[in-house]
Parts: sequence; structure tokens; C-alpha cells
Amino acid sequence: MRKHLIPLAALLAAAPAYPQASANIAAGRAQPSPLAPSEIVAAAPKSDWTAIAPSDLLVMDLAPDAKGKARRVVIQLMPAPFSQGWIGNIRKLVAAKFWDGTSINRVQDNYVAQWGDANAEDKAKAKKLPGDLAVVSQTEYSIDHDILLDRVLPKDSYGVQAGIFAGWPLAFDDKIWPVHCYGMVGVGRDMPPNTGTGAELYTVIGHAPRHLDRNIALVGRVIEGIEHLSSLPRGTGALGFYETPEERTGIVSIRIGNEVSGLPAYEYLSTESESFARYADARANRRDAFFIRPAGGADVCNVPVPVRRVK
Amino acid sequence: MRKHLIPLAALLAAAPAYPQASANIAAGRAQPSPLAPSEIVAAAPKSDWTAIAPSDLLVMDLAPDAKGKARRVVIQLMPAPFSQGWIGNIRKLVAAKFWDGTSINRVQDNYVAQWGDANAEDKAKAKKLPGDLAVVSQTEYSIDHDILLDRVLPKDSYGVQAGIFAGWPLAFDDKIWPVHCYGMVGVGRDMPPNTGTGAELYTVIGHAPRHLDRNIALVGRVIEGIEHLSSLPRGTGALGFYETPEERTGIVSIRIGNEVSGLPAYEYLSTESESFARYADARANRRDAFFIRPAGGADVCNVPVPVRRVK
Repeated sequence: MRKHLIPLAALLAAAPAYPQASANIAAGRAQPSPLAPSEIVAAAPKSDWTAIAPSDLLVMDLAPDAKGKARRVVIQLMPAPFSQGWIGNIRKLVAAKFWDGTSINRVQDNYVAQWGDANAEDKAKAKKLPGDLAVVSQTEYSIDHDILLDRVLPKDSYGVQAGIFAGWPLAFDDKIWPVHCYGMVGVGRDMPPNTGTGAELYTVIGHAPRHLDRNIALVGRVIEGIEHLSSLPRGTGALGFYETPEERTGIVSIRIGNEVSGLPAYEYLSTESESFARYADARANRRDAFFIRPAGGADVCNVPVPVRRVK
Repeated sequence: MRKHLIPLAALLAAAPAYPQASANIAAGRAQPSPLAPSEIVAAAPKSDWTAIAPSDLLVMDLAPDAKGKARRVVIQLMPAPFSQGWIGNIRKLVAAKFWDGTSINRVQDNYVAQWGDANAEDKAKAKKLPGDLAVVSQTEYSIDHDILLDRVLPKDSYGVQAGIFAGWPLAFDDKIWPVHCYGMVGVGRDMPPNTGTGAELYTVIGHAPRHLDRNIALVGRVIEGIEHLSSLPRGTGALGFYETPEERTGIVSIRIGNEVSGLPAYEYLSTESESFARYADARANRRDAFFIRPAGGADVCNVPVPVRRVK
């Protein structure tokens, strides 16, 4: 039995926003624009933006930098059905203030920055996890593939069809799953079938490591402040782990957005909008003055979904 | 008239090392391996490695970090015919010690770190360039495309065929050109048809910005020390430029490798070798214990050419 886990209406409405947008132009959906992608985004009407609920934000405050400057990282959690059980775990971990006093433990160049309890492997020192965390294992989801596969999307270098649907980078064959683009947040784990609790998280700080797709659960993406992770010194131990506690950057707290006073409101450019279709086309075919030769395509991770603070 | 600018023998020998390596396995060239890519590289025989001539290295010494630790970045220059005129310019700029005392002026997250004379736009303060720099404009090269296009390589998300040939990530249709992967080094320029002199260089520190392919000249890649650039604080000005001179990181010197005493010897895993074919296949299809689901493919920038110090 095929389960319709995905809001299909949203996916179908969003499908024309696929980065390889020349087909959209042929279909008359988006007009070629000499504007730069950033200019298209700046000109998008308010109605083309979708609010992100503060209750879907994780706010991670790092220890101040060497000059005493605050370092805040804001993460948007993925909606259902993606990342299902882990999101519940993450909310329980926040409620238990689990991450307060933990640290960034690993920064591997062109790969990931990873955080959590540095002593998790040491039973004597490990922080206690909430007792009721869910055990989840599914990293891809059923869809009505007959409908989606009818779309004229070329396969990418990973042999799958991929695009930006319902606000997120997704790929599908007869299943559908989120994609490891720059800034996506995933769940660290040990060997399979373990898929992690959500207590150890990482974000991508390099070229999209798409070999991790369907192998590790993705639960969100950094929408602000990723530079506080991507510019940290690289760890010199195996896999980029820091070799001494002094090298780690402390996490003061992680909270859900609606618990953080004074947090700005955020919104993303609706991937169903005409503005997004034009933005995606312009990412694939730069026609602004600097460019000589439009590429004629873009991979799904080279079309990041624009996010902004609400003015 | 078609000019055969590329050493075709090298390209053809290397062609099976294309990352989407399942075809290679079908053809019996590479056996599927449960080893991780790094293990395949570690086990590669000495004969599978190719020496990099010190005369093809640029050695950039940055000012020491806040703890007084040395920061050296080593760049391999591209061979002919790629990056033709710019390499000559770069050698002249090194000979003139042009970069000594210049700085890293721009670090834009998920994009580039860029260096050169911060006052280049200010005629009163700009450093004098050597007088005999070449003016070059070609960013793609003629090939015997009938031979290459016969290869069964699927098109990637950019609508072109791409792979690792003769040691470098390249793409081709009826022309051939180098690809903007993580760590590749390119030539900053103003508006076209200007293609830059080579005095301002950048390296990619994020997801491959392949919309720059054929729009900007590539001249090499960082083979060691990229973390000294990728972990720098991001600039807060437009395009990631630093807003004050104090934020810039100084460049003590840039020299050609054979002028630097005590420089280690470097070599890369020959892309024509059986070891590279197995490595590329393993990057596309991870079968080591951590992985549940091999991806079945990899984009050209997710198969970085292994480089090591010679022991």
C-alpha cells in the first residue's frame, strides 16, 4: 500500500521551480530576466514570501568570540513528514536544556561542523538524555510517484530527480527524501541501523556531500549565522574532531524560537511563487552584466532558498 | 579548423575515472570495493601517484594567526593548455614580489576567499603591476570532440558532460573547460570582456559555483592549507569584502615552489590509474560499513583528486 505522506498539492505547485528552469521558460511560466538572482529576490512582492513559525526555529547561542561578540545560529526545522521522530526528540532535548553547556566538537573542512555532548561516548561523564526519546529509522518517504515522475525533470549526477519543492531541496525516485545541501542540518549517528537520537547534530559547511542522502536523517537548515560555524578553526584530529577541550566552542543554550525574546521574524521566498521560478531560472542562467555565458542549468544545491528577516 | 590543444591520449586514458563509475564496473574495469575511499587511496601503490613539479606550485605564506602559528597555503597551477596566459602573468607577478605585503580582502561564506592588492582600484595607492602582462580572454578550449563525445557519460545538472581527466575536473561539449570545484583557484576580473591579469585571485570555499565556469578563468587549485582561507572571518561588506584594513589577513609572500627551501614534495593520485577508478567508484557508491544506501553517482566536484605529501 502506498502512503501519501507528502502534501502533494504543495509539491506539484512547486514543481516548476526546479533549478533547471529552461523548460519553465519554454512553457511561458517565467520570463528570462537580465536581473541578478539577488535583484529578483529583492524585488519579490511581499505576497511571495512565506512566514517561518518561530516554533519551527532552533536558536543556538554560542559563547562570544575572542572579541566578545555574540554568535547566534538560527536553524529552521523541517516540516512533517520529513525528519519525523527526530524533531520530537529535538524539542524534548531543548525542553531538558540538554545542549546548554555542550560544545561544537568537530569542524572538518569542506564537510561538516558538529555539536553535542563531547563526552557522549564516556558513560561516566555523559550527560543524561531525556528518557522518552523516539527511536526512528526512516530516511526516505513514500509519495504518489506516478504524479511526480511524470514531471519532465532530467536526472542529476546522482541518478535521481531533484529540485526545490515546498520550500526544501528534495530528491525522488519512487520515494522522496531531503538533500544534503550547504547549511542543511542532520543527525549524527553511529553504525546502522542506529540513526541517532538527535542529540548530536551537524551542518554542512562545504560542497554538498550527497552520498549522505538517505544514509543520515536531515532535520533542518541554518537560515542565519552559519558563518559562526563555517569559520571556526578546523579540528586537527581524525574526521576534524578537536583534540583538546580548549579548542571546542561552547554552546550557551539552544532554545525554540518562540522562547527567545526579541527574535526577529523570518520568512522564505515561496518556492511556489513566480518570483522563485524567476530566481531559480536566473541561478541556472545568469544574464546579468558580469556573465558571458549562462550555464544552462544548476544543481539543486546551487539554488539555495532565499530567507530574510521580516522588516 | 579544429585545434587539438588537449593531450588527447591523457584524456582518453583518464576517461573511465568519471565519477559516475557504475559503467566502469559493468565494463570490468574496477571491482566494487567495501573499502572507504580514503582506504583505497591509502592502499594505492606508489606507481599510481604522479609527482607535482615544485615549479608548478604557488606557496602563499599568510601572516601568523593570533597564536603566532604559521599559515601556509599551497596551490597547484593548471597545466597547458588550460589557464594559458594567466600562468605566465602569475609567474611574472611572483618574480616582481607583487603580492608580498598584500592581503586577503574578501571572504564570502559558501562562495570565495579572494586576495591581492586591496588598493587596486585607487590609482594613487595601487601597487604597480609588471609592464608586460599578457591580455588573455579564452576560458574554454578546442578538443577533438568526436572522440570525447563518444564516451558514454550522462549529462550533469549543468547540461554538460563532466569528469576528472588528466588530473583535473573538466567539463566539455564541443569545447572543454575546467570546473569550479571546492578549492579551485580563479582570476578575479571586472566586467567582460576583461578577464583579469591574474593579480587578483580567489579560491572556492563553498558549494561548487559552477555558474562561474567559462565566465572566469581557472588557474589552479589549493592542495594544502585551504583551512587557512576557509576558516577566516567572513567580511561584512558587500560580496563579503572586509570593511576595514584591520580585518584583512596579510600575505607575507607568494613564491614558486622551487624557490621555497624545505618545501615537501607533493603528488596526486593519477586519474588514469586503477586506484583512482576504484576511488571514484567508491565516492559514488559508498559500501563501507557506515553506509546503508550507495548513492549510485557523484557530481564531478564530489570526487576531489587525492593529493599527498611524499614521504
